Amino acid sequence: MRDMIRVLLLGTGQMGCGIARLLLDKPGVELAGAYGRRAERTGMDVGTAIGLGRELGIDLHTDLEASIDQARPDVAIQATCSRIEDAMAEISTLVEHGVSVISIAEQMAYPVTASPAIAEQIHWHAQSKGVAVLGTGINPGFVLDLLVITLSAVCSDIRSITARRVNDLSPYGLSVLSAQGVGLTPQAFREGVAQGTVVGHIGFAESIHMIAGAIGWQIERIEEQREPIVAGVRRQTAQVTVEPGQVAGCLHSAIAYRAGEPVITLIHPQQVRPELEGEATGDSIEIDGTPPVRLAGSPEIAGGEATIALAVNMIPQVLNAAPGLHSMADLPVPHAMLGDLRKHLHGARS
Amino acid sequence: MRDMIRVLLLGTGQMGCGIARLLLDKPGVELAGAYGRRAERTGMDVGTAIGLGRELGIDLHTDLEASIDQARPDVAIQATCSRIEDAMAEISTLVEHGVSVISIAEQMAYPVTASPAIAEQIHWHAQSKGVAVLGTGINPGFVLDLLVITLSAVCSDIRSITARRVNDLSPYGLSVLSAQGVGLTPQAFREGVAQGTVVGHIGFAESIHMIAGAIGWQIERIEEQREPIVAGVRRQTAQVTVEPGQVAGCLHSAIAYRAGEPVITLIHPQQVRPELEGEATGDSIEIDGTPPVRLAGSPEIAGGEATIALAVNMIPQVLNAAPGLHSMADLPVPHAMLGDLRKHLHGARS
Repeated sequence: MRDMIRVLLLGTGQMGCGIARLLLDKPGVELAGAYGRRAERTGMDVGTAIGLGRELGIDLHTDLEASIDQARPDVAIQATCSRIEDAMAEISTLVEHGVSVISIAEQMAYPVTASPAIAEQIHWHAQSKGVAVLGTGINPGFVLDLLVITLSAVCSDIRSITARRVNDLSPYGLSVLSAQGVGLTPQAFREGVAQGTVVGHIGFAESIHMIAGAIGWQIERIEEQREPIVAGVRRQTAQVTVEPGQVAGCLHSAIAYRAGEPVITLIHPQQVRPELEGEATGDSIEIDGTPPVRLAGSPEIAGGEATIALAVNMIPQVLNAAPGLHSMADLPVPHAMLGDLRKHLHGARS
Repeated sequence: MRDMIRVLLLGTGQMGCGIARLLLDKPGVELAGAYGRRAERTGMDVGTAIGLGRELGIDLHTDLEASIDQARPDVAIQATCSRIEDAMAEISTLVEHGVSVISIAEQMAYPVTASPAIAEQIHWHAQSKGVAVLGTGINPGFVLDLLVITLSAVCSDIRSITARRVNDLSPYGLSVLSAQGVGLTPQAFREGVAQGTVVGHIGFAESIHMIAGAIGWQIERIEEQREPIVAGVRRQTAQVTVEPGQVAGCLHSAIAYRAGEPVITLIHPQQVRPELEGEATGDSIEIDGTPPVRLAGSPEIAGGEATIALAVNMIPQVLNAAPGLHSMADLPVPHAMLGDLRKHLHGARS
């Protein structure tokens, strides 16, 4: 069998740590290096950086080129940011050095949405260097787009699509909570939305364009709405206590129009402890089509674990792919890659 | 834009008729010819054969080579049979004439299961002729395999998979009902199972091997069980009346073992009017993995409409595919192909 698949990890936040731990457990793949943006952590052992409780003998770099030189990776997993503008410098350096890239930056799920120019540039650069670049993650990247697209396969006609993901922010830290306006007054929430400090979900436009691009719809415009979810009871987590009347989260939704009609509606309220007010978490997809399709599950697919799994499961797909920029919708059907990761590479079955 | 995609239809049963009607409605594709096995229908107008209420000016052929010569198809849709042994002569003729094939024969969903030798032969033949061959359909082909595979993408580990499809046979005719033992005594049902006249579902082994092949499991053995669903109340459809004590359908299930443990369980009871005894129809998939995944919907995705849609939606995928034999699991993510079918061909966007 071929040599171990060498992976360079970018980012040692919550997602980066989870990806590192999975890579350490997974046969056929080697965590060959790690890069982080925080200069004060240069030289720290990666085992320490990810809270493993033992050293790995791999230094955390804050110089990406140096970490590429040392790790000689086949593929890099980028878990450093959300936006394409912020992601592109690292991607560009990786591609220039002949490294394929899997990014969990939300806007990389369908990067032509946020920036057609950067997406085009990444595509040609990757093609010229013979590597593949993919954005993935639970959302965008799976529940509100790839899964919708897959389910649409049974439809000969579609009038509209509605998908909803209700999650609980309890496991998350203050930076995530603050981006959803948790703990604010409703007035401060609305000001935060206006000023861009209350962000809500990043990825609706990416999911909508991924769906529309696959099934063949031209979208005219997308309307997004961010409304405060005002707590009716006290909602407490390890990180935050939300009193009645304060904001427990952000009810963020997006409606896409085609020929003047709303055709894709995505709804993603993110809040702490929705169950305290009788709202169950879960995922649901409804296609008003021929035939109709409706699937739902509760609780929601755990977002952190799923994003970690997707990032690693897509390694063989990215290494098998044609050079260039890809989305989850144009690669072969994604799936779990159990056992040795190398046996999922084309022409490498043992 | 390129010329219309020319499709030759094989079979004018319930599925063939539905596929023909969809092709007639669909922009960018042309029903270029039709072939049926029943000699007594030679020369009948296809519009008459499919009960369209108007003539189409296309004769139904019972000589496949003649219909290929006349239709000059890009792709053929085979809706004539269930088993690979029965499907292969037609597929072989089509491939020999350079025609790609989409088959809804159940065993063609993952043909290496029923016959590795025939699957190999089809693969090399298709490669040598530069065409692609695919099996599809709602089940096998989608609900109990492709959708399971897709959902597995969010899992870093999987302990077991359970998927269930509960449907209502009320829309179906006597041949389908008889294959499920509907109307028999429980005793006659068991004799029918032993003699092979009560078949149950065709496709469990195909679905299991498609899932296992994708995620990387070696399956040791599959145990199938066919139990009579005995009516507790009178169950009546347009075709049949089942009295209490008689068989309303077949509870067919399959369990696949790996390393001595049951790892994939597929359950597909098929019966008339389950709602009369409080059983709701529906589809459900449960993955005991990291993270766990559970999605369900009721009623079940309508099997006939879905199979018809899949057969047509996969036309661009098959024409885009590399030559050879494919399964739903190794092609790009399937999806609805709305609007002109030609715009979904690679390099053919208008």
